[in-house]
Amino acid sequence: MRTSQFFISTLKEAPSDAEVISHKLMLRAGLIKRLAGGIYTWMPLGLKVLRKVEKVVREEMDRAGAIELLMPAVVPAELWQETGRWEKYGPELLRFKDRHQRDFVIGPTHEEVITDVVRKEIKSYRQLPVHFYQVQSKFRDEIRPRFGVMRGREFLMKDGYSFHTSFADLEREYKHMYDTYCRIFTRLGLQFRAVAADTGSIGGTGSHEFHVLADSGEDAIAFCPDSDYAANVELAEALAPAAARAAASQAMTKVATPGKTQCADVAAFLGASAEQTVKAVAVMRTEGGFALLLLRGDHELNEIKAEKIIGEFRFAKDDEIVAALGCKPGYIGPVGIKADIPVIADRTVAAMADFICGANEAEHHLTGVNFGRDLPEPGQVADIRNVVEGDPSPDGKGQLGLCRGIEVGHIFQLRTRYSEALNCKYLDENGKEQIMEMGCYGIGVSRIVGAAIEQGNDDKGIVFPAAIAPFEVAIVPMGYHKSEAVKAAADQLLADLKAAGIDVLLDDRNERPGSMFADMELIGIPHRIVVGERGLAEGKLEYKGRRDAEAQMVDAAGIVALLQGKLCAA
Amino acid sequence: MRTSQFFISTLKEAPSDAEVISHKLMLRAGLIKRLAGGIYTWMPLGLKVLRKVEKVVREEMDRAGAIELLMPAVVPAELWQETGRWEKYGPELLRFKDRHQRDFVIGPTHEEVITDVVRKEIKSYRQLPVHFYQVQSKFRDEIRPRFGVMRGREFLMKDGYSFHTSFADLEREYKHMYDTYCRIFTRLGLQFRAVAADTGSIGGTGSHEFHVLADSGEDAIAFCPDSDYAANVELAEALAPAAARAAASQAMTKVATPGKTQCADVAAFLGASAEQTVKAVAVMRTEGGFALLLLRGDHELNEIKAEKIIGEFRFAKDDEIVAALGCKPGYIGPVGIKADIPVIADRTVAAMADFICGANEAEHHLTGVNFGRDLPEPGQVADIRNVVEGDPSPDGKGQLGLCRGIEVGHIFQLRTRYSEALNCKYLDENGKEQIMEMGCYGIGVSRIVGAAIEQGNDDKGIVFPAAIAPFEVAIVPMGYHKSEAVKAAADQLLADLKAAGIDVLLDDRNERPGSMFADMELIGIPHRIVVGERGLAEGKLEYKGRRDAEAQMVDAAGIVALLQGKLCAA
Repeated sequence: MRTSQFFISTLKEAPSDAEVISHKLMLRAGLIKRLAGGIYTWMPLGLKVLRKVEKVVREEMDRAGAIELLMPAVVPAELWQETGRWEKYGPELLRFKDRHQRDFVIGPTHEEVITDVVRKEIKSYRQLPVHFYQVQSKFRDEIRPRFGVMRGREFLMKDGYSFHTSFADLEREYKHMYDTYCRIFTRLGLQFRAVAADTGSIGGTGSHEFHVLADSGEDAIAFCPDSDYAANVELAEALAPAAARAAASQAMTKVATPGKTQCADVAAFLGASAEQTVKAVAVMRTEGGFALLLLRGDHELNEIKAEKIIGEFRFAKDDEIVAALGCKPGYIGPVGIKADIPVIADRTVAAMADFICGANEAEHHLTGVNFGRDLPEPGQVADIRNVVEGDPSPDGKGQLGLCRGIEVGHIFQLRTRYSEALNCKYLDENGKEQIMEMGCYGIGVSRIVGAAIEQGNDDKGIVFPAAIAPFEVAIVPMGYHKSEAVKAAADQLLADLKAAGIDVLLDDRNERPGSMFADMELIGIPHRIVVGERGLAEGKLEYKGRRDAEAQMVDAAGIVALLQGKLCAA
Repeated sequence: MRTSQFFISTLKEAPSDAEVISHKLMLRAGLIKRLAGGIYTWMPLGLKVLRKVEKVVREEMDRAGAIELLMPAVVPAELWQETGRWEKYGPELLRFKDRHQRDFVIGPTHEEVITDVVRKEIKSYRQLPVHFYQVQSKFRDEIRPRFGVMRGREFLMKDGYSFHTSFADLEREYKHMYDTYCRIFTRLGLQFRAVAADTGSIGGTGSHEFHVLADSGEDAIAFCPDSDYAANVELAEALAPAAARAAASQAMTKVATPGKTQCADVAAFLGASAEQTVKAVAVMRTEGGFALLLLRGDHELNEIKAEKIIGEFRFAKDDEIVAALGCKPGYIGPVGIKADIPVIADRTVAAMADFICGANEAEHHLTGVNFGRDLPEPGQVADIRNVVEGDPSPDGKGQLGLCRGIEVGHIFQLRTRYSEALNCKYLDENGKEQIMEMGCYGIGVSRIVGAAIEQGNDDKGIVFPAAIAPFEVAIVPMGYHKSEAVKAAADQLLADLKAAGIDVLLDDRNERPGSMFADMELIGIPHRIVVGERGLAEGKLEYKGRRDAEAQMVDAAGIVALLQGKLCAA
């Protein structure tokens, strides 16, 4: 391709409303053009990137045995009413009436439609399992679209749905898709992690998210650098400390701590560390009333985990705390309280000795407190906190680190959530009707483009992985319109690289070299060849990788092989 | 591909609501599945066909130098308000409000969006001409969707838009696209005609439709079998007869024609042919009042043509006719009328002698009537009728035939209709602002699938052109699950054909041969190879083309070359 026959339109400055680097760079590089909030035109250069992502996704889905079809974007409301999502889904679901006043949605996801297709098409266990997928423009009416294509309203998705006769077979396909997704993101050249995830509004049980790692990511992930373990911070298990509780070595002592209501302040005031303190969190359970949750002073309560232990709850109000403990918040603790107040200690707290906690007396704390001596052992010990950096990895293979990620894929074991609601049944070997087991598997195709740029960029612009760069190689001739020799060599190189199957762009614009270099770097082309008269005289070309600090002169004769080697290694 | 790894689901009977053959066959062959009125899921087999059409369209658009991008389906109302189409477009335009109560449409066409992109991106004559296109799912809220994908609500379009500094350059690109469209439809293996067309609601001047020829087509087309000439019947010019008017040979005579008010009846009653009669059509012009239009008795008035001659008009009411001519309808004519009533004669009428017409007296007609003797020469002679079969072709190259077609492509010279409304300007060589000239070019990608089936079908099902058949070759083994030799030979043939780049389907289902044959024929695969033990023993396979009456035995050794030859010739 030649720039003169393509459309490249770059900007010096990004529009001021772009918040994140990928959004800024996509606008500056001319990959997208804004039409309305969260709604973009994919310009020719951006579409090339999008199509490369789509192609890898499609190839791997086909290889995995999934079968492509294409469902309508416009879906009648009846199906969404059958599953109850018509009521449950928030205003992100775009609803409208057609000219006959019938209700429709623009499907943000297609569980209902595919289940409707399958319940009509598939009758027998002999036709199962089956996995259908599509690549489709979808719409989600985000209240505040932002980050360009990463949280847009119209976006391109790959969504796949599998149907099975048994949970075991669903689990097999789920694992197969897990592996397929790993292949896809690896082929796309992305640093990513598969993360155990909560299932959110799609429902069902068992789910993994696939995150592209980037400091700007919206999601916090706990991972083990020494293994495959990764989970959303909210879900990562905080193990009990490896060491058993130490023996008591101090006497319990009441100390005045005037005005110190936070663990960190109490610790500092007493010359201790926050890790020696225990905070008591007073809660009101929907069933059972008041309770105390104990956490180490520097740890955070994980409400999802706590809810699994004590059921639905809210934080206790000040007057409820005073009524239960006879003390105002800031100085409360588990010592000397009524025996009927349940105490749930985090695993870490349960292993502490000689700790500091509130004295249940205004402006006072206790030091040297020990379970079993100064207060009963906790009524219940459980994991009720968020993990922190350095916690042992739940798989026992090292210590957890924390990082941030951008969710680009999500796989779910839906089980019978939709097949039951839509009565999607098959006849088993005995001619008996059974509900199908179901999985679903999504990839945010357009979001991947943004995520790849969040992960790959520098002060010159985008650094695309070769697999999804708009072009793999840029040829920049010095004086294409002035030197016959340069023109001939550049044209020949273009032909040679094309013949070798390399996706190459020849910049034949009549621009200053600096401006051409800047554009080729901004749009993220991984390899650059400069064709100049001086080099040609010696049979040389200038090569520079996108991340290289310096260019180097290479033999013109070996250039195709050199580039093939680099592209193969990528 | 193997049927066991694909999804094929055929029906014996088509659902009763399918009206046309392509719709019936698409449902029976399992190419599509209905979700709602005019809204279909493209099942795996149908999607394969759709993608083949899309690929040919894309390849030829790229070859023609058009540049692909992808605009949003969801478009803010403001742009449609700027061009006035927000008000003008009927309820086919799906309008909705987003969660912030802002108005949007689902774009059924994208002139507004592309012009908005171009006015922001293109500033200089040096960046012109440019041609952008996209392939996109669109929505048009048809009041009565029907004929399956041929008049559906959600459909796949290729829409392209070109921008120019001059009308001459627009005309060059228009011609270039005309040729490109001919290449596309030729490659798709379709019988088609490019037809001069009215521009309809898109506006602008200069337009051709591309029709796939099929008896079931919605549009009537006049064409010349001996040349490229073709036009919508409404637009085809009816030339004056080649022969000059004959001399008068009869005296004008009043004859009683009781109860005969139609030309055909009058002619029959008088023992003459309808071609000897002249009918007078009484109209009221919006400006100028009453007038008489004269047509040969067997010809039809073309209101579009007439309006171009006499301006806006309606048919006169009975009392208006009596007031003007003193006679009730059925017996009116041009003889002896008031001199101030304008008479406009069709070209054919103007060349008639000794004709029969109404006498302006109830129950009477005149015979042997001649212009210049019995009444004045017509005030105006013009083409005001529809052409009929056998009329001379307007290009002078033969006689017109009539046929029916399905519109699958449309190209327009929009000129400045949109660029003016949206202020889409460039700076010319002198730094002066100029409005861009604009063309637009559409292809109904999904409609082509239906149209191809309307053109290609028989009592066994679909007969696809090889270019868009879901598979090029079907291998049907006799006893794949019983005979090792058959299985081995079929598997090897599958591998060999794949290696030769042929898109092949091996039917490895455990079904009766008759049922496999019927399915492969129903879904329209152009070539079929049967692998059987008896043939294998002699080194033979059975070959049958989809249209062939009989199968033939061919040498197994030469099968790849045989099929390549047939596919190449297609």
